[in-house]
Amino acid sequence: MRENDFLSWLMSTVPAHPAVPVGIGDDMAVVQFGAGQALLKIDQCMDRVHVDLRKHTPREIGVKAVNRCLSDCAAMACRPVSLMISLALPRAGDGPDDTLAREVFAGCQAAAAAFNCPIVGGDTGIWDQRLVVTVAALGEMPKGRPPILRGGARPGDALIVSGELGGSLLWRQGHHLTFVPRIELAQALASKVALHAMMDLSDGLAMDLPRLCAASKVGALVAGPQLPISLAAERLAARDHLPAGLHALMDGEDYELLFAVAESDLPTLFPAPGAEPFGVRLTRIGTVTEDLKLILLDANDQHHPWPQGGYEHQ
Amino acid sequence: MRENDFLSWLMSTVPAHPAVPVGIGDDMAVVQFGAGQALLKIDQCMDRVHVDLRKHTPREIGVKAVNRCLSDCAAMACRPVSLMISLALPRAGDGPDDTLAREVFAGCQAAAAAFNCPIVGGDTGIWDQRLVVTVAALGEMPKGRPPILRGGARPGDALIVSGELGGSLLWRQGHHLTFVPRIELAQALASKVALHAMMDLSDGLAMDLPRLCAASKVGALVAGPQLPISLAAERLAARDHLPAGLHALMDGEDYELLFAVAESDLPTLFPAPGAEPFGVRLTRIGTVTEDLKLILLDANDQHHPWPQGGYEHQ
Repeated sequence: MRENDFLSWLMSTVPAHPAVPVGIGDDMAVVQFGAGQALLKIDQCMDRVHVDLRKHTPREIGVKAVNRCLSDCAAMACRPVSLMISLALPRAGDGPDDTLAREVFAGCQAAAAAFNCPIVGGDTGIWDQRLVVTVAALGEMPKGRPPILRGGARPGDALIVSGELGGSLLWRQGHHLTFVPRIELAQALASKVALHAMMDLSDGLAMDLPRLCAASKVGALVAGPQLPISLAAERLAARDHLPAGLHALMDGEDYELLFAVAESDLPTLFPAPGAEPFGVRLTRIGTVTEDLKLILLDANDQHHPWPQGGYEHQ
Repeated sequence: MRENDFLSWLMSTVPAHPAVPVGIGDDMAVVQFGAGQALLKIDQCMDRVHVDLRKHTPREIGVKAVNRCLSDCAAMACRPVSLMISLALPRAGDGPDDTLAREVFAGCQAAAAAFNCPIVGGDTGIWDQRLVVTVAALGEMPKGRPPILRGGARPGDALIVSGELGGSLLWRQGHHLTFVPRIELAQALASKVALHAMMDLSDGLAMDLPRLCAASKVGALVAGPQLPISLAAERLAARDHLPAGLHALMDGEDYELLFAVAESDLPTLFPAPGAEPFGVRLTRIGTVTEDLKLILLDANDQHHPWPQGGYEHQ
């Protein structure tokens, strides 16, 4: 059973609960709490699965572990309130590998501090196996604003992505280690336009857009030539002779936002050619359709089937 | 550096934050959230550290992972609102070990369902290393009641434990796998008496009582002959010829409550000899002192130094 199949199965076994408006399956869960709602996420970084201690420094790994979780906060347009960190630490002699532990935790703290988000809980265990860094986040919505789910895209909506896509994993110091979670962008967007649906791109557009469409019970037409292609994807293409656009579609770990808004909100996002009112490049990549299929349009408006696959951690 | 030293260091590096009344160091963290407070905990169960797949079934491990976390909710006298589960799963062929995964998660669900606590988030990763089950809990206090911390014990308070101590790890099917978190007891106690300080006993009274005393800046006189000794501790003593009372002091994973109340609350807890008004055996084991030392009294009221050590996961 592959990872996605397993997650699907896992989801199906969790019974509905009246106090849980949004359970497993969105970027964060939403739970009734006091008079409001708490947003919750857990996410683990495993050595040689999501990160690699042979290539990445412990501090980079700590930063990434926290930022992956904060990227999910961005995807809901919520404010991260607190984080908890659990470390499974390789043994060194008769105790944990001190330097490793300190550096991983320093990375976690630095990433959390960038959003003034306190680390409030921790657990450490020592073993003769590889490193695991597990991060749990608590978030809250600004007053009166609902969390932005994956399931609200409507036929006719424009599909938009932030930043540029592809090639994140190419270099040791690639985007997957250096990205800044789009928390501020998400809050700014939510305050200016009606975000119908949103998620962060962690497994590549090819794998993530179908998730947003499935949750919204819609399809999409995506204009291949419109995809914002990163410099890293261009460089990767020059090396492997695959189209850079394919990398933009298929590569994982962009940690950019994908969202759907009504056409009527487009002037707010794109007031003039080249303008960036939110300080970040935004690109309309397509349109939400009532037809459930996902279709890729080429430069001649010819339809192509949506590419299967995308990035999946083994 | 041993695990406890490492945790101390970790604590010392986390800066104070105005929205975090209680950070790392108590049974749960307390965070300002909306108009109230959120209680948070993260806790991991690692194969061959906290559990052992050679001896314990995957379902038992899932149950234990959740119940350890719920025991911390009991220690604060809070209600568990939701749980998140992260699984690092050993690979079997080209995917996760399905049966293992299903059984672990079924155990988690069963333990959570016993307290009507929904599992709202999950993460799974697959690797060629051992199993890790990480559980994060969100809790809330009943309206108007503060969380019970470790730091509120006062000189003159009575020290009380629930249940019986020792020998938890003796058998494959021992108390450490079958215990029920003392959530209902904690709520009942909090509604009837003023709990000055409370914690759950996970590393053994010898190691845990000093933590409560340190947090409260007090000492304690403990009457060794008063300790409630479990049948398992008696059996262990018959086998290893150490005193059963030593097992009650030193063994870990009791998951019982240790708490401090004023003498004036004792009639509520002990209305008559042999009565159990809370449906659980409660035992007064000693008294909180202003002097910071921890002292063990023998049957002749002779003072003995507090036993060093106690149970620590390697």
